[in-house]
Amino acid sequence: MSKQELVVLGQDDASGCCPTLLTAPLDEDQAAELAPVFKALGDPVRLRLLSMIASQQGGEICVCDLTPAFELSQPTISHHLKLLKQAGLIASERRGTWVYYRLLPEKTDRLAAILTRPAAPAVPVPDKAGAAS
Amino acid sequence: MSKQELVVLGQDDASGCCPTLLTAPLDEDQAAELAPVFKALGDPVRLRLLSMIASQQGGEICVCDLTPAFELSQPTISHHLKLLKQAGLIASERRGTWVYYRLLPEKTDRLAAILTRPAAPAVPVPDKAGAAS
Repeated sequence: MSKQELVVLGQDDASGCCPTLLTAPLDEDQAAELAPVFKALGDPVRLRLLSMIASQQGGEICVCDLTPAFELSQPTISHHLKLLKQAGLIASERRGTWVYYRLLPEKTDRLAAILTRPAAPAVPVPDKAGAAS
Repeated sequence: MSKQELVVLGQDDASGCCPTLLTAPLDEDQAAELAPVFKALGDPVRLRLLSMIASQQGGEICVCDLTPAFELSQPTISHHLKLLKQAGLIASERRGTWVYYRLLPEKTDRLAAILTRPAAPAVPVPDKAGAAS
């Protein structure tokens, strides 16, 4: 009977940080840390704002360039941006009249990693005998 | 003055499906499709439930094995499971007394892909001249 080969999944996620939620149950602390970040992404306006910020070639974007893309007031946009910032997804810097936003990719990396399936499934080959219980 | 090279990112995400939200702004339809899925993950109990289901070696888990992990009533757990199911993250099957849940990995794959940075950044090398404006 061949020995099971246990593959060490040292780089099974993009950040090299943590087990994914697909390989091990999250504990309460991990869930409490991650849930607000997902919640911040749980709104179409915030998703679009984040994607506009994240895909900016120069790395940052002026709030004055974000607002015109939406049929929403600037205070509403600012509120959504504040929620993304509180979730640690973006950072901001005021320069003169305007505030500039940039992605904090560590946070999206962490979410991507937690949702990524390991390249090689770590499921051991079941023994033919003793599948009961 | 050198022309910018625009790299075509044909396979820049894990699923080979779509551009990530880090490379191009999401349109309204994409954001409206994705936001409810992120919202479903925006709760620590649902995150823990999903991770318990997803990391199950046999591929599925009985609701009777999920409930004892939480200090919550079974109707509350069932409500959270219903929201995960409505978001397309899990599927369920009733067999006898109990309902069994399994992950629908296409959905988590899609979220992982949308949050994953392309392997090679598509940022063009800045021209030394003319950095103004």
